[in-house]
Amino acid sequence: MTTVSIIGGSGYGGGELLRLLLAHPCVEVKQVTSRSHLGEYVYQVHPNLRKRTQLKFSDPAILEPVDILFLAQPHGTAQHHIQEYAKLGSKIIDLAADFRLRDAAFYEQWYGEKHTAPEWLKKFVYGLPELHRAELPTASYVSGVGCNATASNLALLPLVKADLLDTSSPIFIEIKVGSSEGGAEGNSGSLHAERANVIRTFSAFGHRHTAEVIQEMGVTDISLTMTAVDLVRGVLATAHAKVKQGVTTKDLWKAYRAVANENPFVRVVKEQRGIYRVPEPKILAGSNYADLGFELDERNGHIVAMCAIDNLMKGASGSAVQCMNLMMGWEETLGLEFMGLHPI
Amino acid sequence: MTTVSIIGGSGYGGGELLRLLLAHPCVEVKQVTSRSHLGEYVYQVHPNLRKRTQLKFSDPAILEPVDILFLAQPHGTAQHHIQEYAKLGSKIIDLAADFRLRDAAFYEQWYGEKHTAPEWLKKFVYGLPELHRAELPTASYVSGVGCNATASNLALLPLVKADLLDTSSPIFIEIKVGSSEGGAEGNSGSLHAERANVIRTFSAFGHRHTAEVIQEMGVTDISLTMTAVDLVRGVLATAHAKVKQGVTTKDLWKAYRAVANENPFVRVVKEQRGIYRVPEPKILAGSNYADLGFELDERNGHIVAMCAIDNLMKGASGSAVQCMNLMMGWEETLGLEFMGLHPI
Amino acid sequence: MTTVSIIGGSGYGGGELLRLLLAHPCVEVKQVTSRSHLGEYVYQVHPNLRKRTQLKFSDPAILEPVDILFLAQPHGTAQHHIQEYAKLGSKIIDLAADFRLRDAAFYEQWYGEKHTAPEWLKKFVYGLPELHRAELPTASYVSGVGCNATASNLALLPLVKADLLDTSSPIFIEIKVGSSEGGAEGNSGSLHAERANVIRTFSAFGHRHTAEVIQEMGVTDISLTMTAVDLVRGVLATAHAKVKQGVTTKDLWKAYRAVANENPFVRVVKEQRGIYRVPEPKILAGSNYADLGFELDERNGHIVAMCAIDNLMKGASGSAVQCMNLMMGWEETLGLEFMGLHPI
Amino acid sequence: MTTVSIIGGSGYGGGELLRLLLAHPCVEVKQVTSRSHLGEYVYQVHPNLRKRTQLKFSDPAILEPVDILFLAQPHGTAQHHIQEYAKLGSKIIDLAADFRLRDAAFYEQWYGEKHTAPEWLKKFVYGLPELHRAELPTASYVSGVGCNATASNLALLPLVKADLLDTSSPIFIEIKVGSSEGGAEGNSGSLHAERANVIRTFSAFGHRHTAEVIQEMGVTDISLTMTAVDLVRGVLATAHAKVKQGVTTKDLWKAYRAVANENPFVRVVKEQRGIYRVPEPKILAGSNYADLGFELDERNGHIVAMCAIDNLMKGASGSAVQCMNLMMGWEETLGLEFMGLHPI
Repeated sequence: MTTVSIIGGSGYGGGELLRLLLAHPCVEVKQVTSRSHLGEYVYQVHPNLRKRTQLKFSDPAILEPVDILFLAQPHGTAQHHIQEYAKLGSKIIDLAADFRLRDAAFYEQWYGEKHTAPEWLKKFVYGLPELHRAELPTASYVSGVGCNATASNLALLPLVKADLLDTSSPIFIEIKVGSSEGGAEGNSGSLHAERANVIRTFSAFGHRHTAEVIQEMGVTDISLTMTAVDLVRGVLATAHAKVKQGVTTKDLWKAYRAVANENPFVRVVKEQRGIYRVPEPKILAGSNYADLGFELDERNGHIVAMCAIDNLMKGASGSAVQCMNLMMGWEETLGLEFMGLHPI
Repeated sequence: MTTVSIIGGSGYGGGELLRLLLAHPCVEVKQVTSRSHLGEYVYQVHPNLRKRTQLKFSDPAILEPVDILFLAQPHGTAQHHIQEYAKLGSKIIDLAADFRLRDAAFYEQWYGEKHTAPEWLKKFVYGLPELHRAELPTASYVSGVGCNATASNLALLPLVKADLLDTSSPIFIEIKVGSSEGGAEGNSGSLHAERANVIRTFSAFGHRHTAEVIQEMGVTDISLTMTAVDLVRGVLATAHAKVKQGVTTKDLWKAYRAVANENPFVRVVKEQRGIYRVPEPKILAGSNYADLGFELDERNGHIVAMCAIDNLMKGASGSAVQCMNLMMGWEETLGLEFMGLHPI
Repeated sequence: MTTVSIIGGSGYGGGELLRLLLAHPCVEVKQVTSRSHLGEYVYQVHPNLRKRTQLKFSDPAILEPVDILFLAQPHGTAQHHIQEYAKLGSKIIDLAADFRLRDAAFYEQWYGEKHTAPEWLKKFVYGLPELHRAELPTASYVSGVGCNATASNLALLPLVKADLLDTSSPIFIEIKVGSSEGGAEGNSGSLHAERANVIRTFSAFGHRHTAEVIQEMGVTDISLTMTAVDLVRGVLATAHAKVKQGVTTKDLWKAYRAVANENPFVRVVKEQRGIYRVPEPKILAGSNYADLGFELDERNGHIVAMCAIDNLMKGASGSAVQCMNLMMGWEETLGLEFMGLHPI
Repeated sequence: MTTVSIIGGSGYGGGELLRLLLAHPCVEVKQVTSRSHLGEYVYQVHPNLRKRTQLKFSDPAILEPVDILFLAQPHGTAQHHIQEYAKLGSKIIDLAADFRLRDAAFYEQWYGEKHTAPEWLKKFVYGLPELHRAELPTASYVSGVGCNATASNLALLPLVKADLLDTSSPIFIEIKVGSSEGGAEGNSGSLHAERANVIRTFSAFGHRHTAEVIQEMGVTDISLTMTAVDLVRGVLATAHAKVKQGVTTKDLWKAYRAVANENPFVRVVKEQRGIYRVPEPKILAGSNYADLGFELDERNGHIVAMCAIDNLMKGASGSAVQCMNLMMGWEETLGLEFMGLHPI
């Protein structure tokens, strides 16, 4: 068995990762750390794990070497400790934002602070297999992905790959998100009485995840607008863009099908009948799928490209496990077979 | 007392209208019709009205003359009967879409069918006081407003009025809506188990309400994209557009404040602190307010303009009562004083 | 105009009270205090009040005399200051639990601490008009009501008044509550991601509100079991009890109708058709109604008695305003006319 | 591979069963029938199955023999066809209510109609492994379980097994349910706008599932009261009963632990800290666990016993698959390993 540990396991991303790793047939979880829940059973924080593990949260200061070290700490922590972590595990997968960007200046521009371990940025591979599958088998260090960035990147992927996008036109991505994105700490606006029934456009521009879309898609005139809605898990990105002159719906079908065929977790959802005709995050809770869809106005080239994911799965821990599978040479879908539920 | 009747009172719009009219100090409700609920107490369908009225649903075929006739039927009905309705009431306020557009050809283009009473189109005033206040005191026939059109029109109004919009750039309006928009009949996708937790972009282009925005705002390169979210009452329109070269946040504040000052039901919401910094429909349930907000990226002129309303109030019955007040020379806010609830 | 102030106005109960008082035709609000939001506009905390008042939160240490002083502080505060408050207002209405119980020993039994102003307990009238209407016109000091106690007391009221209850059998009251009961501060379990979709029986026995039911209904073998469900506003109490030998459904109808006839805010909901056949809190948001219903198993005398209220209205601020109306000799329903919404 | 078919696969129970069987390592799904969706891909109705199967709904009139036949039709259908079904599969597992009761007179009493195949009632084993594990390995015919009955039976199981219940006192079971219980057809009250935010005690007595609790627990003075709440999947039963004189919390712990030890899908949830201290259905979506908890008032012997399940899993399809595993001599937990999600 491959040994793994999770540094920072009491948050939502860490908990989801732990759930996946406990069920994974090839790994053994050695440690899960949490300073605030030190000594508690992990199932006291993540109640779905009851009767499935007797692990307790351990002290992040006392770490044993493992084959793969997962980092699931708040942003800005890992870059201070990466040197020591690298001694504990020859492979590191970070879920936070510390090592997602390849360029220190670009990082500073979007995060408003100097990166403290800039020399490490180049060592990491951006952890979205749909974009970097070829590099993962030889990677030692893999970054996490922003959930909103992932929904955006995958919404645009078929268009970018097939070179159908008119990059001289601005791209507006409207992203609707559930409350688990806010994390287990939350804030006053995360209280149920304030957050329920909400449609709250809390960020019109400048969301940090935009940087990952710029980096990975190679587009520049792009904005992400974030709206909180009443849901716990799930992200829907609805991207508005222009396709190149003459691009037809048929061209788009071809581009989308190609991406779905190459990627086990990508599906195209574009039905003429039934209730579920477009990508929707609600049926994706717990699954690693990214559901893509599109609608083209052939008169003016306006495309609405959609991507639905579970922010804690494809947008965080699911992609991390998928990366692990590829890094280790295992079946890409191992431990990620859950189909999602209907109804839910 | 001014006498009023509602034709078609068992739907959500009709029920909301009835609630408002029952509490209005200057009117007396004579009849509320419903074929499917004929003879039932209105409170059996609209349970909030229990102990407030002993009215029963009456037969739409047996109508008495009144001072004002409200039409709250499904779209496409009123145009067939307008001639007879006009004999029953010298003033008519229609909530449906039959008489919203001024041009028969434009109607046919968006509704895919010939209008059956095209000569009546010019007689109606579009029933949004924020756009047509001056015409209402002398109007006999007033149309309803589309809820999504209203959120869109009011989101754009300060920009259009102050001539700040770059109309050569496309305008994308992302609209998130609650389930009451679907009406009391619903469809298979309206079942709670399918509709709860939803983020469903059910219409990428071509929503019929777009026509009302084109007509009223005088813009042409505009699209409305509709996404259903988990909420019963409420619409948020988030419009993406470009302002003219050189327009600043200060210019926008001036334009927004001007509109808020002229309109008792328009508020500007743009706070630096607290939970409610931007327009949100959840706190508007039952109120007639339209909350406006904006965010400008001064580097590229990209504006995100927001408008939140209660689709059954400002987006339907509330505006209809506001129109009645203006048509009758009453205080514009009469019967519409409810502030909305917090929390909810 | 009668002058009023609210001490403690940033919580949910205080905010709701402020909303009602601002709209009340006979009162003028002088001060609303908040230590944590000192100097902020009240609409920054209670966004529904925007454009309706320019009041700011003032310092609770600097209070001016008024005709009526409302106390809306956290439990356990008012009893320490009642002496000074009595100098500021000749009439006091407290929303907290400090003065709900008439007996100091009984208070200590349920609250686990000695009351610090026991001599004041007898001076207060329990603030539920449906139980103490006759005493209110001459009362100077009126207590608040527990929201769960109110739903329970009103569920049992027709049975107790008509002496139909078999008090030798235990009474189990199952209470389902929305998240606004938890208050504006909340706790880790109040986070949307943890509180949404919840059915959580968080208190099987021993809820403090039980004391108010024992005191007011004169029953002893009674338990309240509390279950949190996914809703913001609303309480439903479902009481299980036995009626006396021979009591029929007809007897019950008579008893319920009598209570509804005497009380403007009590309605009986027991329909054979339609969607809303039983009391439901969802349609009561913002209204002061208490909807009562029952179902009797005539074979064994098992009665299920239901009461639905809005916890912030009938269960707190609405009853407080109703008490004020009665204390001042005004129409009992003044300022409480809002009917509630459908759908919502 | 063992071959299986599902008759009636377009409903929620049939869809959930199909999801489980598609992922089960020992079975191959041959047919899934649906008259209304004949010829459609199953993933058009159950969108979570997209990219996991190319099965289409087939005609229920054209069935091939299989090793195990699952029946997932509306209640009252299977009893008319059981003779023919028995020729198609030597093992039959029915999800509906047709064969849950062992006695034809008892069936008639609760269902208000004569059973059309009474001679088959004795051939079926009640399909809850926690109650009938020993009989399942040799059973040919296994019934489904009512979801509310299952929550009730498991809530009472530790008390009944250890003989701790005072059966001379009445047992009141308060059951809160999500909307998926209403089925994929729904009714006017199932519309999102009417069903969201609901706390609706839609059945005070006489729910048909009561019969299964009487039969399986051997208690008679018992009532089930049903309340709909805003959730899609999940049931919580909160049972109020009396324990025998002298029974202590310690005795109860012993009884509960014994049941949890014997049953892989039973867990005891009774924590002193953290958010999840009691059984809650929200974290069980998709899992086959039944979480049990209790609270005892030692002064009067009042026990509140709770059981949370996913109505579509442990309350329907999950138990059916668990029965299949036991009938076939496979590992009991096979294909049912999903842990559930947190947060959700």
